[in-house]
Amino acid sequence: MAGHLPRSHQSGDEREGDLRRLHDLLRSAILRGVFPDGLLPTEAELMASYGATRATVRETLAVLRREGLIDRRQGVGTHVVVKAVLTQLVEAHGAEPPSQESLLNRRLRPRVLDRSMIPLPALAADRLDAPAGTPCLRLEYVSLFGDEPHGMATNYVLSPEAERMADMPFVHDWYTLLNEAGVGYGESEFIYGCAAADAATAARLGMAEGSPMITMEQVIRDAAGRPFNLAFIHIRGDRFLFVSNAARRQ
Amino acid sequence: MAGHLPRSHQSGDEREGDLRRLHDLLRSAILRGVFPDGLLPTEAELMASYGATRATVRETLAVLRREGLIDRRQGVGTHVVVKAVLTQLVEAHGAEPPSQESLLNRRLRPRVLDRSMIPLPALAADRLDAPAGTPCLRLEYVSLFGDEPHGMATNYVLSPEAERMADMPFVHDWYTLLNEAGVGYGESEFIYGCAAADAATAARLGMAEGSPMITMEQVIRDAAGRPFNLAFIHIRGDRFLFVSNAARRQ
Repeated sequence: MAGHLPRSHQSGDEREGDLRRLHDLLRSAILRGVFPDGLLPTEAELMASYGATRATVRETLAVLRREGLIDRRQGVGTHVVVKAVLTQLVEAHGAEPPSQESLLNRRLRPRVLDRSMIPLPALAADRLDAPAGTPCLRLEYVSLFGDEPHGMATNYVLSPEAERMADMPFVHDWYTLLNEAGVGYGESEFIYGCAAADAATAARLGMAEGSPMITMEQVIRDAAGRPFNLAFIHIRGDRFLFVSNAARRQ
Repeated sequence: MAGHLPRSHQSGDEREGDLRRLHDLLRSAILRGVFPDGLLPTEAELMASYGATRATVRETLAVLRREGLIDRRQGVGTHVVVKAVLTQLVEAHGAEPPSQESLLNRRLRPRVLDRSMIPLPALAADRLDAPAGTPCLRLEYVSLFGDEPHGMATNYVLSPEAERMADMPFVHDWYTLLNEAGVGYGESEFIYGCAAADAATAARLGMAEGSPMITMEQVIRDAAGRPFNLAFIHIRGDRFLFVSNAARRQ
């Protein structure tokens, strides 16, 4: 396919591909924490393993550094400076109890930004099958893992759940709050995407403006299928990943 | 909590919150295609519905415009210029057959960038339980929906599946290719995150450099549980969303 292209163009595509692929592989390995002691292979080792040129290896490392994933020091080498926390999607759904090591096993704590009764906004009304203006609880918070902001969420909760949650101490994560408030729930739905952080959200999450965030819009239903909770969730994509597994129905 | 804060600070937080919440609600409604004829409410309607100031409404609309989601024309109003395609996550896993209207129902076509046998890269080896250097098929492509690039993927496939797929015409999507090549599969795992597009990836996907992309790292196993396929997938987050549903185990 590329046979008729001039040699310089073909090489550009090859170089672009090498850079992208090495970036994908290294980024994944860094976030999954596979390097012993967080020390990356040397440039020479990476060149040999991937058949990449020194220029490509250096450019890849420069990109990873700009992403805030590694640090390079003369004479010391290249070190990983972050490790992502992986959360099972079924746990994020609240569908299964959190595993021992899960973030959702009481490892998070919230910094509440707003907890007030408001009229349900018109654009949230269709998602909750309720008229605009219905009284609802708005609960907005930054979620902290240790001292680091991990994400933030705006929740809209209808009655009667709203009343049960209005004054309940919010200590860990959303599902713990639901449980402690005696609010039962059944199915939950996520719509996943991503977005660039605006200045204010970036500041709340400790990121640079424009940094990519995972976006999750969630609707939680009660055991009878009535939606009572709509949430807009933004998560730091450079620190937190979600894992989902599914087997083919034979 | 904010009672001791100076009034100007409190107002800044309130304004930030109004902007973020209106942005979340409008962005979701735009991507889900809820506005009749793609026409957004007027500024006055948005101010009344959300109790937001005119400045907040205008700033929110400016952010949505910069994100490439709406267009504003004097005397005509504010129109939606995109609509996202939602894909069920179980279908993206290959776990269930695609529904009639699904993207995965033969609506995509690939532009192949690379299809060659290569030694398995060291950083891919642990994910496929195979030694580095094992011969594998690398198949890299941009996925098109209509004429629009929707995502791109780099696949590493072990033998014997690699040989079955090496010369098979690649016409629609990955699962169609697996099926047409007679490659059976069982479980698949995704690790989801997001990333900013580098210059080359952005160009391939028709986005500006730095635009947010959904990242999905996938491992597909055969019916016996042996991993044979590792993929790094990048998806335009402003056009494609994933939906997942899970019910709580009672």
